[in-house]
Amino acid sequence: MTQSDLQMSRRIRRTPFTDKVEWHGVTGFTVVNHTLLPKAFGKSVDSDYWHLLENVQIWDVGCQRQVQISGPDAKKLVNWLTPRDISKALVGKCLYVPLITEDAGLINDPVLLKISKDKYWLSIADSDVFLWVKGLAVGANLDVQIEEPDVWPLAVQGPKAGEVLTEVFGPKINTLRFFNFDWFDFEGTKQLIARSGYSKQGGFEIYLNGSAYGSLLWEKIWNAGIKHNIRAGSPNIIERIEGGLLSYGNEMTIDNNPIECGLDKYCNSTKEPSFIGKTALKEIIKNGVTKKIRGIRFSGTPMKACGIPWPVTSKQTKKIVGQVTSGVYSPRIGTNIGLAMIEKDAWKIGEEIHVHTNDGKTKEGIVCNIPFY
Amino acid sequence: MTQSDLQMSRRIRRTPFTDKVEWHGVTGFTVVNHTLLPKAFGKSVDSDYWHLLENVQIWDVGCQRQVQISGPDAKKLVNWLTPRDISKALVGKCLYVPLITEDAGLINDPVLLKISKDKYWLSIADSDVFLWVKGLAVGANLDVQIEEPDVWPLAVQGPKAGEVLTEVFGPKINTLRFFNFDWFDFEGTKQLIARSGYSKQGGFEIYLNGSAYGSLLWEKIWNAGIKHNIRAGSPNIIERIEGGLLSYGNEMTIDNNPIECGLDKYCNSTKEPSFIGKTALKEIIKNGVTKKIRGIRFSGTPMKACGIPWPVTSKQTKKIVGQVTSGVYSPRIGTNIGLAMIEKDAWKIGEEIHVHTNDGKTKEGIVCNIPFY
Repeated sequence: MTQSDLQMSRRIRRTPFTDKVEWHGVTGFTVVNHTLLPKAFGKSVDSDYWHLLENVQIWDVGCQRQVQISGPDAKKLVNWLTPRDISKALVGKCLYVPLITEDAGLINDPVLLKISKDKYWLSIADSDVFLWVKGLAVGANLDVQIEEPDVWPLAVQGPKAGEVLTEVFGPKINTLRFFNFDWFDFEGTKQLIARSGYSKQGGFEIYLNGSAYGSLLWEKIWNAGIKHNIRAGSPNIIERIEGGLLSYGNEMTIDNNPIECGLDKYCNSTKEPSFIGKTALKEIIKNGVTKKIRGIRFSGTPMKACGIPWPVTSKQTKKIVGQVTSGVYSPRIGTNIGLAMIEKDAWKIGEEIHVHTNDGKTKEGIVCNIPFY
Repeated sequence: MTQSDLQMSRRIRRTPFTDKVEWHGVTGFTVVNHTLLPKAFGKSVDSDYWHLLENVQIWDVGCQRQVQISGPDAKKLVNWLTPRDISKALVGKCLYVPLITEDAGLINDPVLLKISKDKYWLSIADSDVFLWVKGLAVGANLDVQIEEPDVWPLAVQGPKAGEVLTEVFGPKINTLRFFNFDWFDFEGTKQLIARSGYSKQGGFEIYLNGSAYGSLLWEKIWNAGIKHNIRAGSPNIIERIEGGLLSYGNEMTIDNNPIECGLDKYCNSTKEPSFIGKTALKEIIKNGVTKKIRGIRFSGTPMKACGIPWPVTSKQTKKIVGQVTSGVYSPRIGTNIGLAMIEKDAWKIGEEIHVHTNDGKTKEGIVCNIPFY
């Protein structure tokens, strides 16, 4: 697989932070929700990884767009959307909610935020949840508005995140508990901040409402972060895999159900009327699944990105028993690690397997639990 | 705006032709429908442009995925989806069909292919039409299946396209008329081929059904094309703008209605029950729109890609009267040209305007009709 330029056009949307990201010398992007997600800044993935573990980073995750559901039928629609019991979706709480089709195929795995009694945000991964939700609302003739507000999350991640944000938003930021949110003053505006983010190093996501404030928000955080050795960064593939954080489109697609993906605990809804996919999901739970997401540790030198899943074979039977969908060398563990969908025959922890990476090599490995760290 | 690497992962899907595209030395990609679309092969856009006008090119447009709608309610659902009268959607005909929301905002502008009595394909631009259509079907409890089949279009474009494909598929290919399709034998399979494509230079799109045949199909066409000076290419921005071909996400988004985008003639449905957005669209047609897509010719040297729309101001009033969403230097016309959304005050052909490009310069121009060529 070769590396190539990303060709820019208006269709690939910039965020309120893209100017800043370019000023900081971004060298690589990906595209999520038709929007730029910076992925590299000229430093190695290893260097960014160690830095994230010890310091603080600012990430443009504006691509995590919000699908806003509001109106008299909003709660009914949100209930219908997910197999998760959302009775605990109180204002101020974040809830991870898988969305599934009527066949129990995963559509997205957003974070749900209840903004007020009849207004919700879904903070989405990479698929047009807006169109799914709007289609359901139009099809079922529900009394709701579906919108994509001018909201663009900015993440501050790492052990020093609290110290940095205290300078910008005051000490109240430290009272926020994990997966809780509250509103904070910023230059005469009210901004929603959650203690959350796509790393296991702690931190916050500022759901910037009003793209015109993007540069100013970035600058205030940057300036407060200088003495804490802040760096412009992005979700780090080493840290993400170590932490067992799944990525929609990588570890799981619409061809996977939530049970395969280990999301059983988010399939606890007993509400009536039922959610979309309930019949199919009950059947899957009754019959059991034939494959599951596992961790894999395997030997060898660092590899290129896992653009095509790497086949996994059983060491004993030589048969294909699954595929690695994200893999990388972990400096802390001292071996390659990966996230993999593994068939029943081989999903036992400790099972010996071979991974066939895209450098043409076969690597010895074992099945293990996630997270790795 | 800086140029950056595209970071690869499984989430950015490869097509059955990506291996070939890499072998031919692709240097730039964009992402459409979560899928790689090659955009550059190391030659200049100018060189590729002249080559397309005189020879033949093979384009990996596998990102134009199909949304398959089948089952007893398929026709009813397709009727509901678009303001276009689809009574002429016969097996063998391609129809360009805008899809709109209940507010008449554009969701996508696919090509509709009726495969059989109760099976349709929508060959889509960049948005998850699959989720929109599935949402409607689930919401309205329609008796249909919505699928994304293993179909990946490959385009052969340019004046020599017919000669090349005659060698691969036989002389019947020449009997196909523009925007018609038929089935052709390929290595024991039946493949749908349409006389269509995202250029004005003539050509065909092979809707490859069965990704396993991707490399073989590419090779057969490539070998037949060698004596016709075939080149691996991609939709060419100069030729596209000259031809007035709109790009969803660039010239038009969900914030635009089809009348603004000059798609009036595709809003001719009088069917009952009505299509989604009918009430809003009738109101828009009654009141008239306040902006429209126009061509712009403007002075100056070639510019960088139009990642952020370039403001257009009136030469007379100095007020903002619109924006250029795609712009490039046209070697045939000998000036810069662009596609622009222009307000009523300034949309008259010949109106004098200024374009404010991202090199910080102000360029003199006039409003004109599209296509340019």
